[in-house]
Amino acid sequence: MANQAAADASEPVFDTLALIGFGLIGSSVARAARLRGTIARRIVAHDLSAHTLERVAELGIADHCEIDPARAVAEADGVILCAPVGAYAALAETIGPHLKPGAILTDVGSTKQSVIRDVGPFVPEGVHFVPGHPMAGTEFSGPDAGFAELFEGRWTLLTPPPGTHPEAVARVRRLWERMGASVCVMDPAHHDRVVAIVSHLPHLIAFTICGTADDLADETRQEVLQFAASGFRDFTRIAASDPVMWRDIFLNNREALLEMLARFTEDAQAMARAVRWGDAGYIEDKVLRGRKIRKELLDLNQA
Amino acid sequence: MANQAAADASEPVFDTLALIGFGLIGSSVARAARLRGTIARRIVAHDLSAHTLERVAELGIADHCEIDPARAVAEADGVILCAPVGAYAALAETIGPHLKPGAILTDVGSTKQSVIRDVGPFVPEGVHFVPGHPMAGTEFSGPDAGFAELFEGRWTLLTPPPGTHPEAVARVRRLWERMGASVCVMDPAHHDRVVAIVSHLPHLIAFTICGTADDLADETRQEVLQFAASGFRDFTRIAASDPVMWRDIFLNNREALLEMLARFTEDAQAMARAVRWGDAGYIEDKVLRGRKIRKELLDLNQA
Repeated sequence: MANQAAADASEPVFDTLALIGFGLIGSSVARAARLRGTIARRIVAHDLSAHTLERVAELGIADHCEIDPARAVAEADGVILCAPVGAYAALAETIGPHLKPGAILTDVGSTKQSVIRDVGPFVPEGVHFVPGHPMAGTEFSGPDAGFAELFEGRWTLLTPPPGTHPEAVARVRRLWERMGASVCVMDPAHHDRVVAIVSHLPHLIAFTICGTADDLADETRQEVLQFAASGFRDFTRIAASDPVMWRDIFLNNREALLEMLARFTEDAQAMARAVRWGDAGYIEDKVLRGRKIRKELLDLNQA
Repeated sequence: MANQAAADASEPVFDTLALIGFGLIGSSVARAARLRGTIARRIVAHDLSAHTLERVAELGIADHCEIDPARAVAEADGVILCAPVGAYAALAETIGPHLKPGAILTDVGSTKQSVIRDVGPFVPEGVHFVPGHPMAGTEFSGPDAGFAELFEGRWTLLTPPPGTHPEAVARVRRLWERMGASVCVMDPAHHDRVVAIVSHLPHLIAFTICGTADDLADETRQEVLQFAASGFRDFTRIAASDPVMWRDIFLNNREALLEMLARFTEDAQAMARAVRWGDAGYIEDKVLRGRKIRKELLDLNQA
C-alpha cells in the first residue's frame, strides 16, 4: 500500500478528474483543484443541464465541459459522482462501460448504503470504487455557489466496500486532505445512522416546521415572518437547501432516518407530556442535556 | 397622550429605573442605559443571587445594587421585571406594595398571558402595567453576557391590558426605541401563539433532538459529536440556553406550545409517511416551501 509519505506532495492526485454533476460540491472541487494545483492536472465537467455546463464554461473552472457522461469519464483516472444520489443508478449504468481500467470512482453522496447498492453493480473489474461523503455544504446550490475553501476543516467520510485496494482508498483520502478536509473511514451502515441523526433528521425537522408555520392562519403567518426570532431563523437557514438533493437523501436513507425520527418523536411526546403536566424537573433536565452536548461539541472544536 | 415628538429626546425616559433580575437582558438594558444616557438617570439592580449582585457591582453597570426587591423598587419611576417568568408571581407580590404611585411596571418575559395573570393582581392602583417582550437574546446568560447593542434592530412586543394609560405605553415604547428596537403593540393571546411557533417550539425541538442524540449507543454518540454537520450544530446552538428560563417559558405558554407541537408532529408524521412510501413529490414540495419561507424572511430583512 502506497502511503501518503510515499506520494509526491507536488504531484497531482489525478491526471484527469471527471466531475459528474456540477452543483455546489462539484464546483467547489473544481475551484479547489484550480487553486491548489495538486488535485488534478485536468478537470472535465459533466452535468445533465446544458445551461449549467454553459455557466461552468463562463466561470472557467473546468478544462473541458462534456454533456455526454460516457465521454466525460473516458479519459479520466479519477471520477467523482457529484449529482443527487437518486441519479446515481442511471449515471453508473451509463458511465460504467466507459470507465478506464485502473480508474478510481468515488462520490460525494450523503447516503452510503444506497450508493453501494446503486453504483456497485455497474463498476467494471479493474475500476476501484471508494464511496465518499464530504460533510460540507451551504444553503446555496449550483455552480456559482461553490468555493475552493468549502472542505477546509470539515470531515470527509469514506466507506470502501471490503476488499477495496488500499492504494485506491489512500488516493481518495489524499484528494480530500489536499482540499483541507480530515478523512475518516467507516462502515456504510454506521455512516448512514450517524448522518441520519446529525444531518438528515435536522433537515427533515427544519423543512417540516417551515411548512407548519406556513399553514398558520394568514394573520399569524405574516407575524411569524415579521417576528421570526433567532430560533426560527436558524431553522429556515437549514431549510433553504436544494429540494432534489434532499428528496433523494431522504428516500435513500429511509430506514435510518425513520428510526431517528421515531426516537425523536417519542422524546418530543415525552417533553409535551412534561409541559402538559407541569413536570418542571423533567424539562429542566432536558435543557441541561442540550447544554452539555453543546459544550462537548465546543470542546471538539466543531461548533 | 404625550407622544414621542413631545418627549425631549435628551431627557431620560426614567429617573430611577429598577431592574429586577440581572441576567443577559437586565445587564444589557443597564449597559445600554450607561452607553446612551437617555434611558435612565439612575439604575438600581436587584437579583435574588448575592453572587450575581456582587458581579454587577464589580462590572460597575448599576448605580446601586439591592438584594431586597421591595427596597429596589421603592424609589423607581420605572421597574422592569427581568427574571424568569416563573418567578414573577412571587416577585410581584413582594414588590407590589412598594411600587411608587405613578410608576411604570414592565417586564421582558417571553410569555404574556401568564405574566398578566401572575403580575396583574399585585399591581396597585396608580401604577401603570405595560407587559413587554424584547425578542432578543443569545445562547449565553448571566450579567457578564449582556451588551448594550443586544436590542438594536430587534422587535419588542408590548401587550398592555385594555385601559392602560397611553402615556405609560408611549414611555415603554420610547425606552425600547432608544435601545434601538422596533416596537409593536399586540394582543397577549396572539403574542403567545406567534412566539410559540417562531421561538418556543424551535427551542423545544432543539432541546429534544440533543437528548435524542445523547441517548444513542456510545459508539454512535461519539461520532455524532465528532461529525456534527451544520444541521445539528445549529440545533445545539439554540439548545445552549438557560434551563430555568426555558422551563418557565414552556410551563407558562403551555396551551399555545402544545398546539404548535401537535401541528408540527402531524406534519412530521406526514413527512415520515412520504419517506416510507417513497412519495418524492410530497417531499420535494415540503422542501420548496421551506425555501419559499426563507426567501420571504430575507425579503423582510429578518434573516
